[in-house]
Amino acid sequence: MNNKIIYKYIGKVLIAFSALLLLPIIVSIIYKTNILPFSIPLLISLILGLLLNINESNNKVIYAKDGFKIVSLSWIIISLISALPFTINGDANYIDALFEAVSGLTTTGASIMTNVEVLDKSILFWRSFMHFIGGMGVLAFVMAIIPLSKDDKSLHLLKAEMPGPNVSKLAPSVKKTLFYLYSIYIGLTTTELILLMIGGLSFFDALLISFGTAGTGGFSLLNTSLATYSNFCKWTVAVFMFLFGVNFNIYFLLVIRDLKSIYKSEELRTYIFIFLFAVTIVFLNTYHMFVNINEAVLQSFFHVSSFITSTGYSIGNVNIYPTSSRVVCLGLMLISACAGSTCGGFKVSRLIICIKSIKRDILKVIHPNSVRTIYFEGKKVSDDIVKNTCSFLFMYVLIIIVIMFIVSFDELGFETTINAVFCTFANVGLSFNISNFAEFSNLSKIVLSLGMLLGRLEIYPIVVLFSDLRK
Amino acid sequence: MNNKIIYKYIGKVLIAFSALLLLPIIVSIIYKTNILPFSIPLLISLILGLLLNINESNNKVIYAKDGFKIVSLSWIIISLISALPFTINGDANYIDALFEAVSGLTTTGASIMTNVEVLDKSILFWRSFMHFIGGMGVLAFVMAIIPLSKDDKSLHLLKAEMPGPNVSKLAPSVKKTLFYLYSIYIGLTTTELILLMIGGLSFFDALLISFGTAGTGGFSLLNTSLATYSNFCKWTVAVFMFLFGVNFNIYFLLVIRDLKSIYKSEELRTYIFIFLFAVTIVFLNTYHMFVNINEAVLQSFFHVSSFITSTGYSIGNVNIYPTSSRVVCLGLMLISACAGSTCGGFKVSRLIICIKSIKRDILKVIHPNSVRTIYFEGKKVSDDIVKNTCSFLFMYVLIIIVIMFIVSFDELGFETTINAVFCTFANVGLSFNISNFAEFSNLSKIVLSLGMLLGRLEIYPIVVLFSDLRK
Repeated sequence: MNNKIIYKYIGKVLIAFSALLLLPIIVSIIYKTNILPFSIPLLISLILGLLLNINESNNKVIYAKDGFKIVSLSWIIISLISALPFTINGDANYIDALFEAVSGLTTTGASIMTNVEVLDKSILFWRSFMHFIGGMGVLAFVMAIIPLSKDDKSLHLLKAEMPGPNVSKLAPSVKKTLFYLYSIYIGLTTTELILLMIGGLSFFDALLISFGTAGTGGFSLLNTSLATYSNFCKWTVAVFMFLFGVNFNIYFLLVIRDLKSIYKSEELRTYIFIFLFAVTIVFLNTYHMFVNINEAVLQSFFHVSSFITSTGYSIGNVNIYPTSSRVVCLGLMLISACAGSTCGGFKVSRLIICIKSIKRDILKVIHPNSVRTIYFEGKKVSDDIVKNTCSFLFMYVLIIIVIMFIVSFDELGFETTINAVFCTFANVGLSFNISNFAEFSNLSKIVLSLGMLLGRLEIYPIVVLFSDLRK
Repeated sequence: MNNKIIYKYIGKVLIAFSALLLLPIIVSIIYKTNILPFSIPLLISLILGLLLNINESNNKVIYAKDGFKIVSLSWIIISLISALPFTINGDANYIDALFEAVSGLTTTGASIMTNVEVLDKSILFWRSFMHFIGGMGVLAFVMAIIPLSKDDKSLHLLKAEMPGPNVSKLAPSVKKTLFYLYSIYIGLTTTELILLMIGGLSFFDALLISFGTAGTGGFSLLNTSLATYSNFCKWTVAVFMFLFGVNFNIYFLLVIRDLKSIYKSEELRTYIFIFLFAVTIVFLNTYHMFVNINEAVLQSFFHVSSFITSTGYSIGNVNIYPTSSRVVCLGLMLISACAGSTCGGFKVSRLIICIKSIKRDILKVIHPNSVRTIYFEGKKVSDDIVKNTCSFLFMYVLIIIVIMFIVSFDELGFETTINAVFCTFANVGLSFNISNFAEFSNLSKIVLSLGMLLGRLEIYPIVVLFSDLRK
């Protein structure tokens, strides 16, 4: 077995993760709050990491299976550690804390906190910082900072953590690819930070909101999310949510000025089309509820942006939405934004491949002898990818049904149940009829947490882990 | 083009259909009600049929595409004609009548009638008789009675009308296969009829309820569905609904005493497992609401049977069900019973193939070099079937979302919207929060009618018709 290399890798991840815990400690020192909630997890992470890293592995090859295991185990262990600060600081019991941590790392942004405004600044920082870490992926973060002996062997890790049908390598080496991706990530985040500060937010607030936007998370500093911010800030966040829903490859193409490829990107065009379509519907559906047209446009743009990118910020009460807008928003949660972005969900590219595959099947009935190939972004899509996309869809539906079934025993009503499941599994965080998740049972919180992990890692890593454990 | 043979076939179908309209005329005469509501459609059907049948076609080959077109056009035209009696008799405007007719023929059983107890006996007969015709398929009915020049060419029609992954030919010829299927169909219906008469129902009532059970339809003679019948009748219907959800091949195997094949049937075992699982959950979930355990068992068994087979009869108020039972029932609507039965929906066999395909994909990650084949009912499942099943799932989900989106503009609330769509598209007819469909807008009624047709014909025929028309 290849377990040694798996442990070794997880060890490295934990060591790197312990370093990240220094940041909330610094925040604690600045704001004179307790540092214990972060120093204890830091020590646990460091010691565990060192112990696992001692393993000497002769085997240098990482198979896809190992990649999936490393990714899923890392996420589970890091979630368990990330929950500690909330419990040590007395903000939540451990199950609630775990829900909050998983929600943070998976960039869901669904909270069990009934009043976030009383939380310590360091805790608030930690919540949003988890979004920033989780957005690009825990392992990507680690791989970007730890020395890699051989680039190729880590590709499986990157693939397992950022799946979707079109994660293309931007550069010949993993390290270089990660460098580009992080430059884009940090560049966009910094731009948003500056704009939000211009809009009147303090550095701390602007930083946290930018973290939440970048990771498409959605944890906020106020109980009313962003409702009390200036219109300039609201528009900034609305636009940046949209931007973080775009495949990062597009920004890379933008930097190297390959505008032709951008123009030809089917996924981008479909994403923009779905986005505008949804904004139009929601606007026409709700504009009479607002004081003026500007406010109505802002509200529809903001919330569509928030739902489609699975961010989950809000600037008003979405519960006033009529059924038709609710169905549109639920559809957006299901579809989500582009592959290769920080968003959760099914992804536009998968939608396109599924639709093309159906089209092919129908044409085959009409013209039985024709041979048809599916093209996506100008490239031939192999039958394996089509099959995998379909299996993914089925697992997606199946998991939603199973989680719904378990959560339904909380008896919170049908719409609340379906919303809770969609908004966690698709890593959205915002939903109808739910202000926070405190009212759910412990079993539901655990199942929904697992759902968030399944959603974030796109099912396979977690399923592979459990299938292999069972044997 | 092959259009001439398509018209000719539709002509034959209409001529045969006009003969079926003699039955409600006989009922009208017996109960001394107006015969015009049936004689006008009879004439229209006959004249149109004769006109279309005049076509002389040199081409004797029917391609799959033509089969799909014949089936979808026949169903649409027959629905349009079947709606006439309701309008001519003054029971409903034409759009409502069309909804009722489509609901009858597709064996959905969702009604726009607010009070069925005031309807003429002939109209009641017609509603239930449509279930009986639609259950086996309009074309199967026709093909069983009209002379076929060459057996093989009609196989495409049978396939288009009774799709599902495992419609196997029971006998070498289509005619013989149909003979067996109808023997089973009529045999079961007659047995139920006799039992219901023993249970105290009049011949007329027992016949109509048996029609509704056989076609897994669900139109009833009373506003309270079957709630006021004796327990013996309720159990009879409950068991027969379950029986009509079994693949008819099983009964054929039973007749030829091939018990080994029955025992080995994966679909049957899975169907029974899902059925018992759902009954148990619903029972545990609701038994405290009933006067005694017997009543609770009957209620859970009956309604699970009604939901899983997409029949839609009820013997009590399902709106008292808690959320968890609602989710289970919604799941049953989605999955439905066996292929090769008279039920609508996704079908158990597709579920099995999807799950096996996922299993294969996961094993492929764990053991990349292994080659795995999917077996179903002991036979190898080709990759094409797996792909088709997946495409079907995607179309299924996509159509549900699109219909939900349109119906949501009626603003009847989220749960009502989702229930309306599931219960029509899966041809169930019974649902939560909806007593009848009169409250929906005309647009919704038309879209839901189209949904019922799409669901009944398993999407492809209708989609092929429209794709080909568009060109």
